[in-house]
Amino acid sequence: MTKKRIFSGMQPSGNFHMGNYQVLSNWIKLQEEYDCIYSIVDWHALTSSYEDTGKLPERIENIALDWLSAGLDPEKSIVFVQSHVKEHAELHLLLSMMTPLSWLERVPTYKDKLQQLGEMGKEINTYGFLGYPELMTADIILYKADVVPVAEDQIPHLELTREIVRRFANLYKPIFPEPQAILSPLLPGIDGRKMSKSYGNEIPYAAEPEELQARVRLMITDPKRVKKTDAGDPEVCTVYTFHKIFSSQQEQSEIAGHCRNASIGCVECKKRLAEKMVTTLVDVHSRRKELAAKPEKIREILAYGAERARKVAAATMEEVRSVMNLG
Amino acid sequence: MTKKRIFSGMQPSGNFHMGNYQVLSNWIKLQEEYDCIYSIVDWHALTSSYEDTGKLPERIENIALDWLSAGLDPEKSIVFVQSHVKEHAELHLLLSMMTPLSWLERVPTYKDKLQQLGEMGKEINTYGFLGYPELMTADIILYKADVVPVAEDQIPHLELTREIVRRFANLYKPIFPEPQAILSPLLPGIDGRKMSKSYGNEIPYAAEPEELQARVRLMITDPKRVKKTDAGDPEVCTVYTFHKIFSSQQEQSEIAGHCRNASIGCVECKKRLAEKMVTTLVDVHSRRKELAAKPEKIREILAYGAERARKVAAATMEEVRSVMNLG
Repeated sequence: MTKKRIFSGMQPSGNFHMGNYQVLSNWIKLQEEYDCIYSIVDWHALTSSYEDTGKLPERIENIALDWLSAGLDPEKSIVFVQSHVKEHAELHLLLSMMTPLSWLERVPTYKDKLQQLGEMGKEINTYGFLGYPELMTADIILYKADVVPVAEDQIPHLELTREIVRRFANLYKPIFPEPQAILSPLLPGIDGRKMSKSYGNEIPYAAEPEELQARVRLMITDPKRVKKTDAGDPEVCTVYTFHKIFSSQQEQSEIAGHCRNASIGCVECKKRLAEKMVTTLVDVHSRRKELAAKPEKIREILAYGAERARKVAAATMEEVRSVMNLG
Repeated sequence: MTKKRIFSGMQPSGNFHMGNYQVLSNWIKLQEEYDCIYSIVDWHALTSSYEDTGKLPERIENIALDWLSAGLDPEKSIVFVQSHVKEHAELHLLLSMMTPLSWLERVPTYKDKLQQLGEMGKEINTYGFLGYPELMTADIILYKADVVPVAEDQIPHLELTREIVRRFANLYKPIFPEPQAILSPLLPGIDGRKMSKSYGNEIPYAAEPEELQARVRLMITDPKRVKKTDAGDPEVCTVYTFHKIFSSQQEQSEIAGHCRNASIGCVECKKRLAEKMVTTLVDVHSRRKELAAKPEKIREILAYGAERARKVAAATMEEVRSVMNLG
């Protein structure tokens, strides 16, 4: 049986943080089970940063370094830069012709983000910004992805994608699967709230071991576990959320057991997490340093990925043009 | 000195009429003076006909036949189908990122056409329909056109194009000329009003000689020229408007002189026009018949045009990507 296909993308925003690392470590796990296509979506980045593209090349290289050093395997998965595969633009244009304007205007994140970025002084009320979920749809269905790992705030985008897929099927032919979401939970900050620099609760991705240990010590745990002898609930504990990323499956169940029967305390649990984080991230950062010394290698990897992506994309577009009666 | 460049396009709407022929005969004249690029804009046709694309291939072939049989020269001009040159979609996407939504919403034709087509039962309130002038902008500036022959109702589109060109120059670099309009006057119907099937005042493009002669006889002339001995004003005469298309420069000034000093009457003037129209259109229609028997020849011509267009487009896109800092 052929594997199901996954598509996902990340913007080269120049601000890779622990939340991105969580998404990435999920992608890395998914490589084993799925046929994965991961894209650095530089055209999407233009929606909010068209006014300043000077750092874009550096940011693309940086996020490629982040991905590869963390363990994304360019042989297992297709790893490429969106703008290297022009078919994304062609499909986006074709879909635009059949997508009611109101579908895009009603996407709940649209007005929110418009306001949010407007308050930051960004002038992003553009035609392209309105078309963001349309381009995302093109990205996903160009590869006939079955599954898309998304954060909760992107669920409405994926619903729109499915609506567009159904409309395409009704107008022309049902050549695209309706992609399903796999929810990636958001990584909390050390105080349990959403991780954000403005809350001061973040863990910097490039943190040195001492800083990591200090930040982990400050993490809030199950508030009902006051004394070491109280049994805890790992599912409400921030430390355990991090164990889910940095510890193996077996270690996770051990830790959860210890918490539930109070056989280790929170201090010990945090110590184990910090060790895991340090080991993992020190490794990742050292691989990143090595790779960063070989920019031509990165370019080769991305060119190879684009070539593979283009093959899939070209086959889909041939089918699209045929069912739409275009040349 | 290099010639100035012209870009213009026509939708393969499946309804080539005398008004289109007028535009086309203007294009044919412009071939001598300018470096011309003429496109069958099939992607544009999707804005209003995405729901029924079954006849699109036939319509593209038909309009190519119309163009070539009338005298558009695929060696002098670049003649191609828009969807064969993917760079149109890429540039459209990039421009979308920097074009304020309000600029598109305020194009005067937008709401008019929306209502007009809505009344015809077409559901065209799509994202792509709103982006129509954006795609038109991409078409024009992809070839760095200096001049665009347009009908009066497209003047606001060209103003928008110039605005987008200026915005691009401010944000990145001034690599595009601001295209200027050459106005193509609209061909009237035989009663002097706008030519339209609903007024019953049209002259079918494929009319046989007898029908052409009968339609010309019915044309209204200068209303102040009541008797044959009254001097007339050719500039207010429908017959003269047609002479401008079908008669040579020299014949035109002769006719205008005869009208102004009443040396020939309207009946004679109409007879001369009908003869010209019959001769021209019989020739055109017979060439069209010959060409229609060689569909592979048409395909070759369009492939050759696309190849030439692609070379210009690729060079522009390389420059665009470079000034926008994209790979």
